[in-house]
Amino acid sequence: MTMLDRVLALNAAYARALDAGRLEAWPDFFADDCLYKITSAENVRRGLEAGIVYADSKAMLRDRVTALRTANIFERQSYRHIVGLPSIEPDGVSAETPFLVARIVRGGETSLFATGVYRDRFAGGADGRLLLAERIVVCDSGHFDTLVAIPL
Amino acid sequence: MTMLDRVLALNAAYARALDAGRLEAWPDFFADDCLYKITSAENVRRGLEAGIVYADSKAMLRDRVTALRTANIFERQSYRHIVGLPSIEPDGVSAETPFLVARIVRGGETSLFATGVYRDRFAGGADGRLLLAERIVVCDSGHFDTLVAIPL
Amino acid sequence: MTMLDRVLALNAAYARALDAGRLEAWPDFFADDCLYKITSAENVRRGLEAGIVYADSKAMLRDRVTALRTANIFERQSYRHIVGLPSIEPDGVSAETPFLVARIVRGGETSLFATGVYRDRFAGGADGRLLLAERIVVCDSGHFDTLVAIPL
Repeated sequence: MTMLDRVLALNAAYARALDAGRLEAWPDFFADDCLYKITSAENVRRGLEAGIVYADSKAMLRDRVTALRTANIFERQSYRHIVGLPSIEPDGVSAETPFLVARIVRGGETSLFATGVYRDRFAGGADGRLLLAERIVVCDSGHFDTLVAIPL
Repeated sequence: MTMLDRVLALNAAYARALDAGRLEAWPDFFADDCLYKITSAENVRRGLEAGIVYADSKAMLRDRVTALRTANIFERQSYRHIVGLPSIEPDGVSAETPFLVARIVRGGETSLFATGVYRDRFAGGADGRLLLAERIVVCDSGHFDTLVAIPL
Repeated sequence: MTMLDRVLALNAAYARALDAGRLEAWPDFFADDCLYKITSAENVRRGLEAGIVYADSKAMLRDRVTALRTANIFERQSYRHIVGLPSIEPDGVSAETPFLVARIVRGGETSLFATGVYRDRFAGGADGRLLLAERIVVCDSGHFDTLVAIPL
């Protein structure tokens, strides 16, 4: 498999798990030693390091899942990720990939929820599967409903 | 060609035919012996088998095209499918693929029409081309305008 | 690299440059001798040749960038391209590829801006990189905000 095919497979599986509501599977797409952050294009432009969501270990990602389960977010709405074509960086272990997420409110409207890019650095898992050592989610809009900070 | 490349090519051609309004070409993406169904995520969760649209042969798909032509659906609006990255199942002959469909009303608005996943099982055609033995279209929203049940 | 992989890479890089606001990089995706046009599906159906935007050389594309910079379009809004799966034509040097563009207004809403297809003819660059000899952007909707005719 080429690096492109491996990145496509990782992104397909990642989006599928989230959109099926299998949140507990989400941390397993990351290396033990990892960085996950949701931020906005404007924050990046202004050099602001802080993110809306921040986790620097797999354990923190698991805590986040627990919090989301407690908040019952996924009972009232679902999401659909459309992940675009990755640009593999010259270093061969990083990529930038655009995405779009639609939100489907139960018994209601479907709307554009978020667009942006994933800035990823990859690591190899024990079984040869690609893992995320770093995923910085840079959203195009800075308007977030902070109460529903679902994984993107 | 890898299975991934073949699935990408099938989905690209399928979406292209529908969005160009070439409805008559649509049944030819299926095997003679096939199943096509449009349903919702909620119906699947509740174990409801019935779909909004159901066809279990290529002949039924052709009847559907005739019905849609009679209703003149495609004179007033068009659709644009953005088909995402397939997750090829371990069996190598099935896949799940997310999609998003925009609706463009003539002289009017462009809006999000539907999102969901294709649950596909493939068969090989005589010329080596991949065909759909089964395509279950699971829409994220259960709200359909049943009068405009266009192929998805 | 297969032709499919090369087209995917070209489209990924093209969308990335535009969405990052690196407009000056945009003409470099084209061959010196090129055709770029934005038109609508209805104009194509009616056989109207004129486009909303028309450039038949790299120099004209550069002029267009200068005009857009003067108009300060990208200060107030950003765009996100989601480019779909290409259908490579039998000639091996052309493709049709669907796209969707979201518009993100600063401090405001994210909305569907445009959908359509790229009708492309490719040329090989000196370094083996794929270039656009022709990109006809056929938008599904004929409603354009002509004042903000950004590259698509």
